[in-house]
Amino acid sequence: MKVITKRNELINTMKEVSHQSLGLVPTMGNLHAGHMSLLESALNDCQQVVLTIFVNPKQFSANEDLSTYPRTPQEDLDKIKETAGNRANDIIVFMPEGNTEVYPPGFNTTISVSGITEKLCGKSRPTHFAGVTTVVYQLFTLINPARAYFGQKDYQQVCVIRKMAQDLNLNIDIKTVPIIREESGLALSSRNGYLSNEEKEIALNLPTKLEVIESLLKFNTWVDAGAQLNEILESTLSDKAWDYLDILDSKTLEDVDQNTKEVVIAGAYFVGDRPTRIIDNRLVEITYA
Amino acid sequence: MKVITKRNELINTMKEVSHQSLGLVPTMGNLHAGHMSLLESALNDCQQVVLTIFVNPKQFSANEDLSTYPRTPQEDLDKIKETAGNRANDIIVFMPEGNTEVYPPGFNTTISVSGITEKLCGKSRPTHFAGVTTVVYQLFTLINPARAYFGQKDYQQVCVIRKMAQDLNLNIDIKTVPIIREESGLALSSRNGYLSNEEKEIALNLPTKLEVIESLLKFNTWVDAGAQLNEILESTLSDKAWDYLDILDSKTLEDVDQNTKEVVIAGAYFVGDRPTRIIDNRLVEITYA
Repeated sequence: MKVITKRNELINTMKEVSHQSLGLVPTMGNLHAGHMSLLESALNDCQQVVLTIFVNPKQFSANEDLSTYPRTPQEDLDKIKETAGNRANDIIVFMPEGNTEVYPPGFNTTISVSGITEKLCGKSRPTHFAGVTTVVYQLFTLINPARAYFGQKDYQQVCVIRKMAQDLNLNIDIKTVPIIREESGLALSSRNGYLSNEEKEIALNLPTKLEVIESLLKFNTWVDAGAQLNEILESTLSDKAWDYLDILDSKTLEDVDQNTKEVVIAGAYFVGDRPTRIIDNRLVEITYA
Repeated sequence: MKVITKRNELINTMKEVSHQSLGLVPTMGNLHAGHMSLLESALNDCQQVVLTIFVNPKQFSANEDLSTYPRTPQEDLDKIKETAGNRANDIIVFMPEGNTEVYPPGFNTTISVSGITEKLCGKSRPTHFAGVTTVVYQLFTLINPARAYFGQKDYQQVCVIRKMAQDLNLNIDIKTVPIIREESGLALSSRNGYLSNEEKEIALNLPTKLEVIESLLKFNTWVDAGAQLNEILESTLSDKAWDYLDILDSKTLEDVDQNTKEVVIAGAYFVGDRPTRIIDNRLVEITYA
């Protein structure tokens, strides 16, 4: 396993790597089983994989948790090795030693997507996705992968990256890997580390609510579920702990209509004093009427 | 000479074209001798050249001249053929038949550069350069040239595109081609077509002022010229016809300092009732003290 901390070393290394069967797994580190399933998917599909660990300042706003975001580089490397098994030689880990390894001094360019970024998480995090698309684009051009792997947990993020890749004619296959959950049902997230056991209990309100809606939509048409769905949404959102709870066409992130084949049920929920904002979603196929 | 009006035809054609010696000349049409000198430079350096003609709506704000911007496709093609001479077979003209050939339906991505775009023309045209970088990036990825040619007249534009290319690791050589002027000294521009003969006379205030400053800086150090320069700037800018007149480090577009080797003297000037906003600039090497 090769570990690279400098931009120039990465650029030189990538010259020797074939683009054809290269996978990219971009992460912010503090790796958990969700990240490992991205790595496993990538190793399964690709001859070589670059996993990046970079807490990207551009995707945090001033009032967010950039400074306290968990950083565990040694544990991360151990986990990667363990997951890799006899494929360790096929993995390059890029963990830039500073922000200038990703954004050289004077870097001043932003790549942003409008429309799809203005709902769900984009409402309370209006600058977040431009930070995401800018860093992902940088990693794409530095690494030039054939495929890139993202977790379904950040569902809107995958949609935004897919849109950027389409609009900018990037020849990269964007792969979505299913959510990994704790036994309790809580979706894995590095930010779960901010939660006490009691808060984790409370956090289960999020996946539980998504499941209730999922069942409703599994056993009813969209039209038939309508009244009950509105009731659930209304009563849920009257609780200020919910940042949002929404059901959208999973392809377009637009409102559901007769052409919708699958919806994403997406929620964001505040837990604890800090507070910690957690997100989760479920995909479910629907029949409209 | 091949003329392409559809995105898909362009993409297919470019598959057969070698990137190594391909030049791109992006224009908004209504071609004049300034554009022809871009084409000549490109033909001189490259085996093949793509010249694009596209009035890019994204770089016009709502109160600007998008609808009246001169469109002269047949004359443009004639001029290109005339300039090309026996090299006509080496030229591909991309004149998209509609905006969706450049921006497919649902296109929602913006590439923007901060800092350098916030001065000079950026002050009165705050959304202009994001429109420019977004369209230029689209043309870059569709056409994949080794070199791209821009006129020095839009000096800030070249600096912004250079910055984007650097930040986004685009492997494209950005070439600047000197300004072509009418005999009177007025820099060629499609927008000169908006001016009456009397207005063209008045417009000469712009190049004349730039020349005065150029002389001052040619025969004095920056420090020695200081007092007189400030006087010129102050008295000039008290005339509301001037949008700006500024002297900046030509490399960084920052204020001149001891490291500055060359300055750009850049001005924008309103002429006539419409009014028409014309721009011009001169590059001059300086000694600081």
